[in-house]
Formats: sequence, structure tokens, C-alpha cells
Amino acid sequence: MSWTAHSYMARKGVAQGRTGAEHALTEAAQGKFHYVYGPYVEAKLRIQPGDTLTVETIDAFGGRVKTENDLPTKVLDFPFVNPQNGPIHVEGAVKGDVLAVHILSIDPRGEQPCGTTALIPEFGGLVGTGTTAMLNAPLPERVKKMQVTRAGVKFSERITLPYEPFIGTLGVSPEIEAVSSLTPDYWGGNMDLPDVAPGSIVYFPVQHPGAFLYLGDCHGRQGDGELCGVAVEMAATVRLQVDLIKGWSIPGVRLETEDFIMSVGSARPMEDAARMAYRDLVRWLVSDYGFEESEAYFLCTQAGKVRLGNMVDPKYTLGASMKKGWIGG
Amino acid sequence: MSWTAHSYMARKGVAQGRTGAEHALTEAAQGKFHYVYGPYVEAKLRIQPGDTLTVETIDAFGGRVKTENDLPTKVLDFPFVNPQNGPIHVEGAVKGDVLAVHILSIDPRGEQPCGTTALIPEFGGLVGTGTTAMLNAPLPERVKKMQVTRAGVKFSERITLPYEPFIGTLGVSPEIEAVSSLTPDYWGGNMDLPDVAPGSIVYFPVQHPGAFLYLGDCHGRQGDGELCGVAVEMAATVRLQVDLIKGWSIPGVRLETEDFIMSVGSARPMEDAARMAYRDLVRWLVSDYGFEESEAYFLCTQAGKVRLGNMVDPKYTLGASMKKGWIGG
Amino acid sequence: MSWTAHSYMARKGVAQGRTGAEHALTEAAQGKFHYVYGPYVEAKLRIQPGDTLTVETIDAFGGRVKTENDLPTKVLDFPFVNPQNGPIHVEGAVKGDVLAVHILSIDPRGEQPCGTTALIPEFGGLVGTGTTAMLNAPLPERVKKMQVTRAGVKFSERITLPYEPFIGTLGVSPEIEAVSSLTPDYWGGNMDLPDVAPGSIVYFPVQHPGAFLYLGDCHGRQGDGELCGVAVEMAATVRLQVDLIKGWSIPGVRLETEDFIMSVGSARPMEDAARMAYRDLVRWLVSDYGFEESEAYFLCTQAGKVRLGNMVDPKYTLGASMKKGWIGG
Amino acid sequence: MSWTAHSYMARKGVAQGRTGAEHALTEAAQGKFHYVYGPYVEAKLRIQPGDTLTVETIDAFGGRVKTENDLPTKVLDFPFVNPQNGPIHVEGAVKGDVLAVHILSIDPRGEQPCGTTALIPEFGGLVGTGTTAMLNAPLPERVKKMQVTRAGVKFSERITLPYEPFIGTLGVSPEIEAVSSLTPDYWGGNMDLPDVAPGSIVYFPVQHPGAFLYLGDCHGRQGDGELCGVAVEMAATVRLQVDLIKGWSIPGVRLETEDFIMSVGSARPMEDAARMAYRDLVRWLVSDYGFEESEAYFLCTQAGKVRLGNMVDPKYTLGASMKKGWIGG
Repeated sequence: MSWTAHSYMARKGVAQGRTGAEHALTEAAQGKFHYVYGPYVEAKLRIQPGDTLTVETIDAFGGRVKTENDLPTKVLDFPFVNPQNGPIHVEGAVKGDVLAVHILSIDPRGEQPCGTTALIPEFGGLVGTGTTAMLNAPLPERVKKMQVTRAGVKFSERITLPYEPFIGTLGVSPEIEAVSSLTPDYWGGNMDLPDVAPGSIVYFPVQHPGAFLYLGDCHGRQGDGELCGVAVEMAATVRLQVDLIKGWSIPGVRLETEDFIMSVGSARPMEDAARMAYRDLVRWLVSDYGFEESEAYFLCTQAGKVRLGNMVDPKYTLGASMKKGWIGG
Repeated sequence: MSWTAHSYMARKGVAQGRTGAEHALTEAAQGKFHYVYGPYVEAKLRIQPGDTLTVETIDAFGGRVKTENDLPTKVLDFPFVNPQNGPIHVEGAVKGDVLAVHILSIDPRGEQPCGTTALIPEFGGLVGTGTTAMLNAPLPERVKKMQVTRAGVKFSERITLPYEPFIGTLGVSPEIEAVSSLTPDYWGGNMDLPDVAPGSIVYFPVQHPGAFLYLGDCHGRQGDGELCGVAVEMAATVRLQVDLIKGWSIPGVRLETEDFIMSVGSARPMEDAARMAYRDLVRWLVSDYGFEESEAYFLCTQAGKVRLGNMVDPKYTLGASMKKGWIGG
Repeated sequence: MSWTAHSYMARKGVAQGRTGAEHALTEAAQGKFHYVYGPYVEAKLRIQPGDTLTVETIDAFGGRVKTENDLPTKVLDFPFVNPQNGPIHVEGAVKGDVLAVHILSIDPRGEQPCGTTALIPEFGGLVGTGTTAMLNAPLPERVKKMQVTRAGVKFSERITLPYEPFIGTLGVSPEIEAVSSLTPDYWGGNMDLPDVAPGSIVYFPVQHPGAFLYLGDCHGRQGDGELCGVAVEMAATVRLQVDLIKGWSIPGVRLETEDFIMSVGSARPMEDAARMAYRDLVRWLVSDYGFEESEAYFLCTQAGKVRLGNMVDPKYTLGASMKKGWIGG
Repeated sequence: MSWTAHSYMARKGVAQGRTGAEHALTEAAQGKFHYVYGPYVEAKLRIQPGDTLTVETIDAFGGRVKTENDLPTKVLDFPFVNPQNGPIHVEGAVKGDVLAVHILSIDPRGEQPCGTTALIPEFGGLVGTGTTAMLNAPLPERVKKMQVTRAGVKFSERITLPYEPFIGTLGVSPEIEAVSSLTPDYWGGNMDLPDVAPGSIVYFPVQHPGAFLYLGDCHGRQGDGELCGVAVEMAATVRLQVDLIKGWSIPGVRLETEDFIMSVGSARPMEDAARMAYRDLVRWLVSDYGFEESEAYFLCTQAGKVRLGNMVDPKYTLGASMKKGWIGG
């Protein structure tokens, strides 16, 4: 039996571990993509807790960077970047609930080389930006295309990296805000966290009736921090199962795999993202695993793991995790 | 002749220094207040460049903290805080223009004591918060009411502070986002910068057709940084003149008084707000005052002034300024 | 009668406001200058509380940047920069005491143009550095010499800025550390805070027997933040009076003028410097001015002032102040 | 044949992979421990490149926290914490060289339970501190003792964590500074980075003649970030082999294992530590592995790994690494 039978999703979800209807949201069906996470649009699809979804996402450049000559500053039209599928309305979801998203698979779509990375002026972790504002001249703009298959990401003639896909941008609508799909926050969004991958279940605090799930920005793989700001961007076919947990109050995104539980924080400076993630992990250990607060704090000190998602987006994202084996999860 | 005849507003504005029609936006006329800066609502009022406005704002608590017993966590309903008047549509404004807002006067409204400050759990510059997440217990919640008149802010029996009012939250709509009125950014918003005061002209980069001016959150006075997170909050009557400068590309908020020009940055960590503000000031000296870049950088080094607006909001706000007397402005 | 008669120095100092002997520490008498604040050297001079001192400092470049062709990376020998006079042993000072330094005057020394500023690669507030590490190319190195007299700093043919001198680096020895004179911390050091100026009394927590006062790095003037990293550097003649306050425990540098009291914080990120400064100011209002803690927090919120010293040194320095007129000081 | 035959140490070291003399530095031989990393003391031991060392370290509390009733604020005497063995003079080391330290083994010493962790007021990643200064009351002070053997760290009755020891504080002397052993920096020091473990070779840029190697502060294990500020502190027996690489200029600490190369950054805010680490890794890939700079930046983006050492010390430490398998190392 799969570990998922013991997941929060299976134990607490409305669907009680059962699989519901199958839905598809193709690129054509999506039609117009979205550039904000917000409540000011109509739902594109309505589903029930327990249903599964196949979604065709487009890449963070909306497919406009077709060759290494298509420089982002020429072919993109800010702020219309990082296009998102959705929103998907989940029946019965209201503020105070949690939306559970089990990621089943992610496959690359489109013509090869379908992976794209780039150096974009004033963007990235090792250059001056609009906020870490510098007088230095930007680096030259550059695009690099890569073949991406389940067999690997062909970085160069001599280097093929493992295919380790994940969803860069995934989350639910804020209650009254409509926030750029470039930004991560407590509702999810552009976390660029490699653990949001097949096999993981991600939990989001619902803010808006129907939750309004959005997703996009799949990556063939990414290093910790997404250093230059652009991972292996690709169009993808994503399969998800969605469920709803009633009355579970969580302050931000949580995540679960077979091996660990993780709390996610998004903030600047980076230590605040770490504080948010670890404080939530401490409190989760207290509420669900029987630890007294100082014991939970000690356990995180001796056994917590940190995964840096991004150090380039408007907020940096970082996950703090604990092995299930140590806490009886 | 007033200095304003030489202001950017008078020299470059569509109204060419002329005063247009008078408008009023009373509390009753406003009706429903707004809690986001965004384009997803109808304009409440339409004006022409050069027109003047009298606006009745309500305080950041929506008037719900009437006595020192009305604790914010009891009477407020997050995220419905910091209510804003507007949006006001300015004829002819499009992306790439600048909206100029000359603040003429700010007067307190309502029953005395009409000023309110408070300690709110997990909010403020010297306590753990949702982002600078701590395990320490919060400080006790507390409300303090103060009489506010043009004669002063009665802080206590022994201390009356000068009445130095300003608009805490003022700005234009983002292009596609709708962002909490608690947040400052390049379009303005909750800057909590005491220079946004009578006598100043504030310049905002237009993002949305008609600019969509919002305002609220007036303060009877405030120290640098708005340390506990809550200034002398008050309902107010605000008089403004608004003009439009076509084709002036600015990366964020700028401000002008008789004595100085100022660039404003909003970011975390605080040094990034300072970098944004100072980089824009350097570039402004280059573009408009005849300085070579390194000379402008040197001049800011030897003569720049910094004003800390807030160190408590989702982004910290800080202004960097240069005396007009030194640059021939 | 001067305000200083009511200063902490006069009221609590060992010298009880009396002036002691006169000492001189000429450049020649200093001989070898120091590049760390530490206890591992012999005192250069021994004085009594109440004594006055005339000290000849050299500039932060040790006088090696004589012309605009003397590029810092060519003529300097890191880490031997920012040379300091001292240490001066103050009789009777022990850990737990406070050293009071009243700055009487600062005059420029040496051949004109005696003021120097510069752009140094990988140093400054608007460029990538060794810590805010970037891949961008550095700005071109550049030196600018300026005539500095009591009449003003001749920034350029068209701009003469007021002469507003201060001591960039001033403090006492740490207990067991010896820290670069480029770094500010709780013992003082390279604060680059313009309030450390004639007329101010600065208070330092003694860590080492005899206090071991160091000073150097005088500036003809400086803007807030010392943006490019190099103020109007100059050799100077400094006059000081020094006193000792027994048994006054302060967590960091404090400062007093006729008009205000100030607490100083040095840290990164900048908000931590602000937190340190303001927390100490709140506690100072509680301990010495009769405020309950939340009242002090409120008063700082409504009436505190912030002065940014530097945003370029290994720690950023910032002062938070309160007007004496409002607190009965 | 061991991977170490291909290490930088073996390929570039003066000892050319040969093992020299054996030395021991027992607790008794050390006698007086040190609390700063600096040049102002005599070397305790002199060795040749290639020599091996067995060192008896004491724990970060100097052994004073013997039971759970020995509260740190009662039994410790700041700043005399984190005692260090050394300095060890390595023959021939001069500024511009690199000291290579191969960690062979780490074993716990002393009576059980020999592991100690603690909550110390104003210290830790989820509480207000002296720099992230808050008005909130501190958490209650607490000590937790744990049995530590090669078989594991007995965290509680139900949880035994793997024994994964490392050296918390290891490095060389700065050139002219003497810096608290609580602080990490480019010369090493209190990095609290779990990769500084048996099997790793750590590289330090020599600043002082003889390098002056210091070490102490061994940990039975630690989670990422050392969240509460205190890992599984223990006295230990450490075995090291030391070599010298002439004329290798590195800007900070580097590390090598069988599987990866790592660059280490120590700074606040945390993103600056990440920038330092990743910039050095990019440059290392360029200088030693044949990458063009933008390719190296892309590779780190897609395949870099980040390990958070500490988020509690005066500077935060973080390592950025790349798998040797991908770069032909």
C-alpha cells in the first residue's frame, strides 16, 4: 500500500482517499492565461474534492523564447510573464480550509529543444536588480536552449543532468489581492521549490471560495536557489489529484512526501523565510506530533533540513523539513 | 510667487500650472471603501488634470477603534483594514505618464480624541511578526487615544507634540495586480512617509488607464520608521491638486518640496529600499541636473539625506533627497 | 550656562564637570597608527577623567591618495587602511563603566585640496561588493580631491557644501577581540555617523581596563549613508574632553547633544541596526525619563528620528533619537 | 584507491599526498584555550605540511554545563565561550597560500550524557536577540543533556538520531584582527556547517605566517541552520591531516568531499551568504573546470545545492556545492 494512504490528504480529506472524476485542462481549453493569482476572474473549471486533473501548461515565457536569438527583453511584454492555468474552482472550499494537491506526474511538451534558460538584465541572484539596485552595468543578455526528456536535461555536449521536474508556480487565490504570478507568498505562487514535484502532496490555506487553484511554470529541473532566475523552463503536461481538508488552519504552504513533512516560508530577507518555515514546523510538531514547544525547537535544531527554493523572486522561498521516521509520522 | 511655479508639476504638467475644477469625495459619497490598490473596480470619480479635490478619509481602522477598550484583534476583520478612498480616474493618464499630486492641506475630522495608536500582536518594528517569525510571546495588546487638533497631538498630560500631518497611504493602481493597501511599492501605497505632507508634490508612475488614484490612512504625526506600526491614526479632510505629466518615465515614487527633491524606495531588507531610493536619485541628478553619473554618486555621498518612512509594513519605505539649493533646482 | 552642565557627562562623570589637564597627541607622537580596535597593544597616552586632548589624525587612506591619479587599489595596502590614533588609557576605567567623549572641535589639516573621495572597486552602497557578491563588472575606479576649509567643502566649481565635520571612527577597545577599524560595533569604531560631531558627547561602554580610546577617519562632511563608501576624507586636528562614568551599564553607543539623546545600532541587515537603536532608546526612556515601556514605544513611534550613518561598512550604522524638549531631558 | 588521491590537497599540496609525522594536542597540553581567532598569541604546536594531528577539544561551554540544572547564564562568563584549541603553526604557510585540513575522524569524549543543547536567552533563530532586537520577553532558559556515542544521539526515549559529527569551529587566524570564536568569516571560524565532517577536506586562505590553525566546538550532529543556536555540543577527539597549497588564491573557505566541491559564504543577511558562496562557486568552475562564466552561472542555476550551516551566529554560514560527477572533478 502506498504511503499516501497515511497522508494528511487521505486521512483528513473530504474524498477520504477515493479518486473522483478525471478532468483535462488543455492549452486550447485554457485559452487566455493569467498573470496574477487573484479572485477577479471566472473559474475556468469546476471540480470536486478527490478529482484528478491533466493540465497543459505553457512555459514561463509563454512560449515566446523559441530560439537562442529570442532575447527576453525583445520578445516578452512585462508584466505579462509566467502565464498560469486556472483558476480551478474546488467545490466546497472556503476560507479556513486547506486545499491538498497531490502531484502525480509532469512531462515535457512541445518541440525539442523544449527547455529554456536565460540571463535577463537586472534579474538573478548574482546581479544588481530593480530592488538590490546597483549602478553596475548588467551582464549581457543570453538564452540557452536545452533538450529535455524523461531521460535527462541535456545541459551541454558533456553534461546531461537528471530529469527532476517540478511545478514552479502553484497555489490558490488570495482573498482580496491579485498578485503577480512572479511572487510567492503564503498562498503559494512562484515558490520555485524543487520539492513541489511528482510524489509530493502540497497543502495550501484556502482564502477564496472555491480555492481557485492556479498552476504553471514547470521546470525540467533546478538547482537550489534558481540562481540566475531562470530554471529549465518548459511547457508540460501535469497530472494532479486535488482534495479538500475542512477546518485545518495553517499559516502558509505545507508539503508532505513519503519521507518528510515540510513547512514553506517566502519572505525577504532570506532569514525571515527561514524563520517562517521553521516556526511553522515547530508548531506543526507541537500540534500534530506530541512535542512540547522547546522539544520541537530542539529537534529542529538537531534534525531539521532546509531546502532553498529561490533567491531571485520578489520573495525568497525556503522549506524546512523533518523526517517522518523520527517523529512517528 | 510660490516655489510651485517652478515645480515639475507646473513646468511639465498638462494643466500648465492652472487650477481646474473643484471636486469633493465625501465619506458618504465614497460609500464602500477599498482594501486593495488595483484596477478591478469602477472609478469613484473622474477628474481632469489640474482639478482640485477635497477628500474625506477614514482612519486605518475604519473608525472601529473608538475607545481604548476596542482592541484591534477584537474589532477588526483582517484583511479589511486600511480603507482607501477612490479610485479617482484622471482623464488622459496612461502607462508611461506620471501623476502629480500636490497636497494642499490635511485636517483632522471627527470626535475627539480622534487620534489612535495601538500595540497589535505580531505587528511592529520591535516585536516578532508573521514574517520575522519568533516563538516569543507577543506584547500585551493596547490602544491609546489622543486628542489631535491643528494645535498639536496631545500625547500625554506632559507631552504635546506638533501637528505634522501627512497621508500614510497614497498612490495609483498597479497595471494587473490588486495589492493590499497595507503594502507600499513603486506605485505608492502604504509608504507611511512623513514627507507626503502638505506642501509636497508627489509623483507616481501611471500603470493603468486613468491612473486610479487611491488615498487614505492619514496621520496626525509620526516618527521615523512608524516604530510600533501604528502612527497617530485619524480620519481627515484632505485637499489635493492633481495634474498629469505625459511621457515622463520614472521607476517609482518621487517627491518635491520647496527645498528638496526626493526619490522613494520600498523593499526588504531596508538596505534595498535605500539602494532603490539612492539609485533613482543618482539617475535623476544625471537626467535632469547635468551631472555625470560618478559626480552624482559622489554628491549623494556627501550631501544626500535619508528619511525612514516605515520599518513595519510588508515593504519598508525610505526616501533619499537632495537640496535644491545645491543642484540649481 | 552651557547645556553641557546638564549633560550625563557633567552630572555623572568622575570629573564632575571640571576640566583637567591638556594633552596633545600629534601625528609624530603617534608614530605608528593602528588598524584594529583591540587590547593587544600598549597605550600611547594615559589621561585622567576630565582631561582634554588635541589629536592629529590622518585620513582614512593614511595620506597616500595625494592626487586624483593615486588610485586606491594601487597605493593602498589592505588591510592597512583607516589608520587610528591611540589607544588612550583613561585612568580608572573598567568594564561596566562608560567613557564619555565630548567633541570640542575638528579642523582640517594639511595641504589643499585636503579632502578626498573615491570610487573603489567592490566597495560602496550602489555596487556589488565582497559580501553582496555580484558578477557585474565594477565601476571604474576614480579619485576626486576637494578643497576643505571651515568655509566649506568645494565639491565642484558650482557647488560648495557646508563644512560639517565629524569623526568617522571613534570608540573603545573590545574586551578580547581586535577588530578592523573599518567595522562599527557596540564599542563604536567605524560608525560614520555625522552626529559624532563638535558639540556632541558620545558615550561608549568600557570593555577593557583603561577603556583604550581610539579615533581617526575625520570627514569634512558626509551625506546620510556615506553612499559610495568614501566621505570627504581628511587629516584633522581634533579637540576632545574625556570623562568617565562609573557603573553605567549601556549595551552600545549613546550620544547626546543640546537638543536630543540618541541610541546607536550597528548591524546588517539595516533593519537590525534600526531595531538595536530604537530598542535601546525605548529602554533609555524607561530607565531615565519615567516612561512605562509601552508609552516609550509609542513615543518613539510618534516622535523618534532616525539618522542613517553608513550603508557601506561591514555593519550599517544608524542612530535613533528623541528631542530633549519632549521628555524633560 | 581513495578519492583523496585526486583531491586538491593531494594534487597541489606541498606534501604531495604523503603522510608526515603524528602529533597530539591533548586537553592538558592545550592548557589555556582561546576565545578569539587571531595572531596575538604564541603557537601551541608547530607542524609540517602532511602531518597528522589528534586534538582533544572541549565543548562550546568549556564543560561548565554538566547537568540540566547548569543554566548557561549562571555558569558561563561571556565572552569566554566556545574555547578553541591551537593555534597550530604550519611550517611555510604565508598569506596567499591555502591551508588544507582533511578531517579523518571525530569521536565523543567524556562522561555520558556528553551531549548538551540549550535555550539561552536572546540567542537563537526563532527569538529576539541583541541584534534582531525585540521587546518580547525571552523564552525560559533550558538545558537538555543527551547521550552521544558512535551509535547515535539519544534525543529522547523515543528518538535516537544518527551520529553525524562535525567540527563547528575551524579555521585560520586573520591577518591583523582577533575575532571572537563565535563568529564565522572568510578565514573559517564558527561556521557550524555540517559538511565540515570526517571525509571532507576544508581549504582556508592563509592570512598569517604559519596559518595558525584553531579548532573546537564539535557537534554530535546538527540540523540545517542550528536553529536554537546550540547543536549537540560535546567534547571530542579529532583526527586531522594538514597540508599546505602554495600560491592558491581563494577568497574564502572551500570544501571538497568525494562527491562534490563546495564554496562557503558567511554574512548577514542570509542572501549575502548565498551570493558569496555561489559567486565563488561560479568562479571556481571557470578557473578550474573549463566553464565560460555564463555557462557556470547556468550550471549552478540548474544543478547547484545549498547547505545552510547556521542562522544564529554573528554571520550566517551557507555552502553552495556542485557534484563532481557533472563537472569532471
